[in-house]
Amino acid sequence: MPATGVATTQPKYSFTDDYSEGAHPDVLNALLLSNNTQEVGYGRDTYSEAARELIRRHLGRDDVGVFFVPSGTSANAISIAACLRPHEAVIACSSGHIVTRETGAVEASGHKIINVAPKDGKMTPEILTKALDDNWHFPHMAKPRLVYISNATEVGTIYTKAELTALKRICEANGLLLFADGARIGTALTASINDLTLRDMLELTDIFWIGGTKNGALLGEAVVVKDTKLAEDFEFFVKQRGSLLAKGRIMGVQFAELFREEDCLYFKLARQANLAAEKLSRSITGAGYQLSAKTETNQVFAILPLALVQALQQEFSFYVWEKYGEFAVVRLLTTWATDPAQLERFNKIIFSWQPDME
Amino acid sequence: MPATGVATTQPKYSFTDDYSEGAHPDVLNALLLSNNTQEVGYGRDTYSEAARELIRRHLGRDDVGVFFVPSGTSANAISIAACLRPHEAVIACSSGHIVTRETGAVEASGHKIINVAPKDGKMTPEILTKALDDNWHFPHMAKPRLVYISNATEVGTIYTKAELTALKRICEANGLLLFADGARIGTALTASINDLTLRDMLELTDIFWIGGTKNGALLGEAVVVKDTKLAEDFEFFVKQRGSLLAKGRIMGVQFAELFREEDCLYFKLARQANLAAEKLSRSITGAGYQLSAKTETNQVFAILPLALVQALQQEFSFYVWEKYGEFAVVRLLTTWATDPAQLERFNKIIFSWQPDME
Amino acid sequence: MPATGVATTQPKYSFTDDYSEGAHPDVLNALLLSNNTQEVGYGRDTYSEAARELIRRHLGRDDVGVFFVPSGTSANAISIAACLRPHEAVIACSSGHIVTRETGAVEASGHKIINVAPKDGKMTPEILTKALDDNWHFPHMAKPRLVYISNATEVGTIYTKAELTALKRICEANGLLLFADGARIGTALTASINDLTLRDMLELTDIFWIGGTKNGALLGEAVVVKDTKLAEDFEFFVKQRGSLLAKGRIMGVQFAELFREEDCLYFKLARQANLAAEKLSRSITGAGYQLSAKTETNQVFAILPLALVQALQQEFSFYVWEKYGEFAVVRLLTTWATDPAQLERFNKIIFSWQPDME
Amino acid sequence: MPATGVATTQPKYSFTDDYSEGAHPDVLNALLLSNNTQEVGYGRDTYSEAARELIRRHLGRDDVGVFFVPSGTSANAISIAACLRPHEAVIACSSGHIVTRETGAVEASGHKIINVAPKDGKMTPEILTKALDDNWHFPHMAKPRLVYISNATEVGTIYTKAELTALKRICEANGLLLFADGARIGTALTASINDLTLRDMLELTDIFWIGGTKNGALLGEAVVVKDTKLAEDFEFFVKQRGSLLAKGRIMGVQFAELFREEDCLYFKLARQANLAAEKLSRSITGAGYQLSAKTETNQVFAILPLALVQALQQEFSFYVWEKYGEFAVVRLLTTWATDPAQLERFNKIIFSWQPDME
Repeated sequence: MPATGVATTQPKYSFTDDYSEGAHPDVLNALLLSNNTQEVGYGRDTYSEAARELIRRHLGRDDVGVFFVPSGTSANAISIAACLRPHEAVIACSSGHIVTRETGAVEASGHKIINVAPKDGKMTPEILTKALDDNWHFPHMAKPRLVYISNATEVGTIYTKAELTALKRICEANGLLLFADGARIGTALTASINDLTLRDMLELTDIFWIGGTKNGALLGEAVVVKDTKLAEDFEFFVKQRGSLLAKGRIMGVQFAELFREEDCLYFKLARQANLAAEKLSRSITGAGYQLSAKTETNQVFAILPLALVQALQQEFSFYVWEKYGEFAVVRLLTTWATDPAQLERFNKIIFSWQPDME
Repeated sequence: MPATGVATTQPKYSFTDDYSEGAHPDVLNALLLSNNTQEVGYGRDTYSEAARELIRRHLGRDDVGVFFVPSGTSANAISIAACLRPHEAVIACSSGHIVTRETGAVEASGHKIINVAPKDGKMTPEILTKALDDNWHFPHMAKPRLVYISNATEVGTIYTKAELTALKRICEANGLLLFADGARIGTALTASINDLTLRDMLELTDIFWIGGTKNGALLGEAVVVKDTKLAEDFEFFVKQRGSLLAKGRIMGVQFAELFREEDCLYFKLARQANLAAEKLSRSITGAGYQLSAKTETNQVFAILPLALVQALQQEFSFYVWEKYGEFAVVRLLTTWATDPAQLERFNKIIFSWQPDME
Repeated sequence: MPATGVATTQPKYSFTDDYSEGAHPDVLNALLLSNNTQEVGYGRDTYSEAARELIRRHLGRDDVGVFFVPSGTSANAISIAACLRPHEAVIACSSGHIVTRETGAVEASGHKIINVAPKDGKMTPEILTKALDDNWHFPHMAKPRLVYISNATEVGTIYTKAELTALKRICEANGLLLFADGARIGTALTASINDLTLRDMLELTDIFWIGGTKNGALLGEAVVVKDTKLAEDFEFFVKQRGSLLAKGRIMGVQFAELFREEDCLYFKLARQANLAAEKLSRSITGAGYQLSAKTETNQVFAILPLALVQALQQEFSFYVWEKYGEFAVVRLLTTWATDPAQLERFNKIIFSWQPDME
Repeated sequence: MPATGVATTQPKYSFTDDYSEGAHPDVLNALLLSNNTQEVGYGRDTYSEAARELIRRHLGRDDVGVFFVPSGTSANAISIAACLRPHEAVIACSSGHIVTRETGAVEASGHKIINVAPKDGKMTPEILTKALDDNWHFPHMAKPRLVYISNATEVGTIYTKAELTALKRICEANGLLLFADGARIGTALTASINDLTLRDMLELTDIFWIGGTKNGALLGEAVVVKDTKLAEDFEFFVKQRGSLLAKGRIMGVQFAELFREEDCLYFKLARQANLAAEKLSRSITGAGYQLSAKTETNQVFAILPLALVQALQQEFSFYVWEKYGEFAVVRLLTTWATDPAQLERFNKIIFSWQPDME
């Protein structure tokens, strides 16, 4: 940006989040190739239609609604508002993104969130059952109607098929809808310990979304709506929230590219992100430091001496999660774009660091 | 899209709207060049900061808030919700986009819209004064607090400096905020009869926005907030509505490109759109047909025989606005991307058409 | 109130509205007799249960929900919010109470009201059909889902059985709910030209309410909900809006008294109000002046010389509706409590008045 | 209710809540005496004006707004909605009435509630400070703006002047408003250990309310609004929520009666309620059982053997709060209407009860 003389890069290499880069080159190229044709607006363009078809093929069902929205907060707020009546409440872990990082968007649509304490960042049958037992005094209490989970969770853990099945059973037994936030569903479904597929996500939830922003796209999340009646009206909610883009092609083109192949780019990129996280984790443990949680996806939580944290901060930016005396828990995020050379550099620094270097 | 076998182009050339194409090549190229650097998220990236600076320079003030959102509906709904308390109402023309094409997004944020009948698509001092006279019975009536106008209007007309000044005066005298929807502010400010500048828009309104989607960008509108206190908290509203994109760079890069030069790309593209509309209008009048309204910007409203309309529909897609017996009013929209060859083709067809060809 | 020295009566006899007095003596006495027993809270008390049973008996159905709320605005806002999903809109006459006198309460619950111009204060099949024709562009327009009418209307007119049947047919054909505001349903159903019964109101609407405040009670409206599923959850909405009174007995006792007998107090009081309005109307026409609308219920609209209006204002308070040159339209309201002596006095004054008295 | 044959009394004497009876005889008598005069509607009647004056006199300030609403939920929801902008949040104890017993009414008005764990049912400076420390990540988190407390709390405890002053200091230092739910402010301000006055409540909060329903009235709470600008518009919110009663006199008359004298009926009734609770507590401890919390107001929490609980349930109805093995915590509420003979009977039963009676 010579016109303004502002530096366009971060001073240090960043492991702070998984949305620091733009789009994957193939995705960007697809945008380039599609740019000049005339398309119908508001998501009725041929690219969006194709993307919906491709996603349905991966889901193994051609009768589900697929809707593209520009952000995770819009995906969550729209999906939840579309499912609930005014007196109905959401049950969510206190670590849930809708609880901690969406500026009260769910409440802004009129709905109470019943907070529960998670186990490893996850909702469990026991936690859910207790929440139902505690919210019985009708009509004085809001009526629990939807359970919000994230896969991967906000702390990088994932749900097993058994765990998700158990939650779904309780939901069905209690007239609850199960909704999954899929901002990081790519890294979840490609984790080494994962046993869930995209088709399982469809079968074991009522509504969920596939995050594009954090896995190769410039923007866009694809909300998958199983219930036919809800899908019929869903676009009204997308439009009412300002999320129905006139040039919907911008999201359609990207998702079509990400899901074109059978072994598609979407999951390839997620695997790369997980692989990078594994490398970081090995560097940390190999150098004799502990992880505060087992690395399951693209989030690494490590316990490092404060002096080492400061040394690393000279070279890299990342998030200091918590401090305990002489130690800190740091969070390091990786993506498809994480530079292998930087992982190598990180490895060198952490191995060569000596306390007396301070 | 060979993978899906869906045609990617419209069968006929379209004058239906001004968002059928993608981004202007220079804008797309800027996205390409900016793609690989790491940037801070949520609109704090260097491109967005640069774009804000460039827009402020065009506005001649460095103390105004500039916020990028992905759609016109989000720009309108967020701006209005940010300005109002729960009992306050909006006064808008019944032809206003917030009244007719935003799925009740303003009401969804809790606010009543007081509808008034427009004159040439515009609010006038008389109309506004009557609306105030009719809404006096407090606290039984919602309290008028914000006046919504569009420039250009939904029927392609524009406000003169005198008209906008007169409205602002009444607003100030009655404690009302004046808000301008700028989805087509580019074509408005470059219209041949226009006497307003971007700086006038800032001075004569309390809050307004600059539409990118319909004037060269893939997506994005820039909301300009004059009040410092409102600007301080404005990002909360953007985030709460799901409009604060993690990769905010996608909007920053485009607006930086559109507003870089003094005689900037943004207005060049708008002039092209208006020029194309003038050509279309001359073809129509030259061939002996009437316009139902003088063409002021990039919207052409023509009165054509139904038979001619049908003949044109063989070659082009456009919107049939109304029918009167043997005639119809059609709406033809142009943009920076309108193909001169197609204008020529349109001209040939309309000149050569004979009723007895039917 | 000697303790404060404030006068406790209005200086002049008032025909301004139909809620100037307290409760009918029998209703007040019922409150007195019921005061000392212990009752379960929140509408589960024996009086409310009895009142629900009595109202159901009058409706001829024991399977409908009956819910007591403290005001007409709460009855309207709660009923409408309970029926609609976020993207659904209300169609209402521009003279409707929800449009003009409820501080945007419907919009505050997130729903758009599509305004239509009434005929004699009423919705007609033609008006409704046109509103549907004008609101077709989905998902860009809010989806019409509920039709709001008032019986009696805000200008004192009433619906015939044929008119209401015709509206219900169109609603059923278009998936619309029909909702009737019954603030003045007593005077409507006892009007001389009325051919509707309370049972017809139940059969020909989806939800409606029976106004207590304007017909003998101190406060309270009874919302009748026909749909079983809606009725199941309705109390949540009542509670959420702060309308579920801890001592619900205060409304139960009053409605039980008003509806105890077969030929019940509720309709006796309404007949008195209508009779008083007829007397006023005869005085006015007898004295040679015109009514601006035929008096159908307890609202009288008369065209009087300004000088006579001023003379009457020396003795009575009432609402001056509009002025035309030397004449004004005035609105005079009557109730069960209207003092016959005051009607006589009004008659004397209007008959004896001479222009040259000025 | 012979007409329906439904019993009008509870089978057993109830200590379940403090709203089982109607109004205090003096209050009911005032309604009786005021019934027949004509009054202006919507709270502009002479009784409501007088009540406002009387309450202001007790508050020692004539410049505060006083607004009557029909229920505690409406008082809370309206007050909070009136104070906040859409992105602002409430901080409240997880035991707070707005959190546990108002059907998500605060969220229904769009606002997030940040839950914190209370100490003895109360907010403390430490708890509040931690909540602020945890909610810093703007604009991704809702902005804390209002602190909700109840006095007396939901577990019968009260705030000392020192405690309330400390909270107010933190609020002022952090731009927070302090709001007090006064559903039981009468019993709080007349508790033996209380050192707060009504004037202190005004001085040490920004907005609070005086509960009528649980202390002698049939319905009605008086919201006291200190900020002049907020008070100016407050009636809009009351009306929009359906809480502005046409016959506002019903609340005005009752509050005028409750606050007429200097040593007013309102506090006399509260003292009676507290005295009754002390008697109950003495019976329980005198019989050798423990209280689970010191009795500060009109709520008694006692730890009794399950067998004794069952024996008492033969004679009285009350709320079983929790069970621990062979014991249960029961909640017993008293009011101005609690029958001394029933307290005596309770005393006899608990003293004479023997485990082997089972």
